[in-house]
Amino acid sequence: MLTIHGMLDSGNCYKPRLLLALLGRPFRHNEVSTLDGSTRTPEFLRRNPAGQCPLLELEDGRLLPESNAILAYLGEGSRFVPADPFRRAHMLRWMFFEQNAHEASVAVRRALTVYPSRRADATPERMALLLRNGTAALAVMDRHLLTEPFFGGDAPSLADIALYPYSAAAPEGSFDLQPFPALGAWLRRIEALPGYRSRDWRPQV
Amino acid sequence: MLTIHGMLDSGNCYKPRLLLALLGRPFRHNEVSTLDGSTRTPEFLRRNPAGQCPLLELEDGRLLPESNAILAYLGEGSRFVPADPFRRAHMLRWMFFEQNAHEASVAVRRALTVYPSRRADATPERMALLLRNGTAALAVMDRHLLTEPFFGGDAPSLADIALYPYSAAAPEGSFDLQPFPALGAWLRRIEALPGYRSRDWRPQV
Repeated sequence: MLTIHGMLDSGNCYKPRLLLALLGRPFRHNEVSTLDGSTRTPEFLRRNPAGQCPLLELEDGRLLPESNAILAYLGEGSRFVPADPFRRAHMLRWMFFEQNAHEASVAVRRALTVYPSRRADATPERMALLLRNGTAALAVMDRHLLTEPFFGGDAPSLADIALYPYSAAAPEGSFDLQPFPALGAWLRRIEALPGYRSRDWRPQV
Repeated sequence: MLTIHGMLDSGNCYKPRLLLALLGRPFRHNEVSTLDGSTRTPEFLRRNPAGQCPLLELEDGRLLPESNAILAYLGEGSRFVPADPFRRAHMLRWMFFEQNAHEASVAVRRALTVYPSRRADATPERMALLLRNGTAALAVMDRHLLTEPFFGGDAPSLADIALYPYSAAAPEGSFDLQPFPALGAWLRRIEALPGYRSRDWRPQV
């Protein structure tokens, strides 16, 4: 069975959990944490030199880090990947946008807000920059969602699964979603998908 | 013919130029700049709401932003994409790493260093954080390159093309590459590939 080594509270780790829930595919969750040093042990660093989670472990022991690469691998051939190459490229466009413009600001500001051990890094200057950049990323999403219901077009794609966790959690980093009604409506559409599970869910295996 | 709307000096814009040079595929370069406002005009924002370059324009006018999504689209079916799904996922792993850990620190510190119009954003606190995060990303690359010659395994992949431009340009942001000899050797291997062109190259069309 697949194993996701991940931290329940992390949006990056939630992404593969959400995809597997939507696909109805069984897996095992092994809790690790970037906060308690368990992703920085020599053993973990041998498995992922970046010292981060999630980390996917296949049945045969092969390993794959990076949340969006895990989505691409597990989602291949599923209804969450458009068959048309150009649409697939646009799905990847939003997944790269997520890692560069969105996660690096929205997720980081949330982490600096909610984890007491990160508070020393939450200087006023840094928090202001993250607020500005994160709000700009949410605005780009909102503007796009005026043109189509999902980031994959008419149907949800891996890009929606990549963008959902930290967009839904943005208020935990004091981002105001009120100015972005199209984004709010999209969050509700994701939450209405058959098989949807919230961030705190993990399989009972 | 394909058009790349891009800024010659930008590493993100260099990526598709380098791929097309290595593939020997003709294209047109149209110079735009994130520094002079030409990517923030209403017309450009209609074409890419993120207001960034590069932006790929196909023969039929369809548009695709995000450098690594452009690589994925143009590279599909080429020798720079491994046929095996798991190796392909690892290629994407490094491309997401590039946008999150590497570009967001190494490229940003370089931009704040070399562009006078960005100097106001180059506070000592921010520059120190970017140096720390960027050096950590370069160290992860160096450690990986002790295990295989390229980020695609034995042969270069789109991940190498994504990681090359800002790694080569890291000294422009005052990153010291001396402690990373495996990374230095890998830069030289990329530069020895048939068809390689440096960042200032553009086709004469």
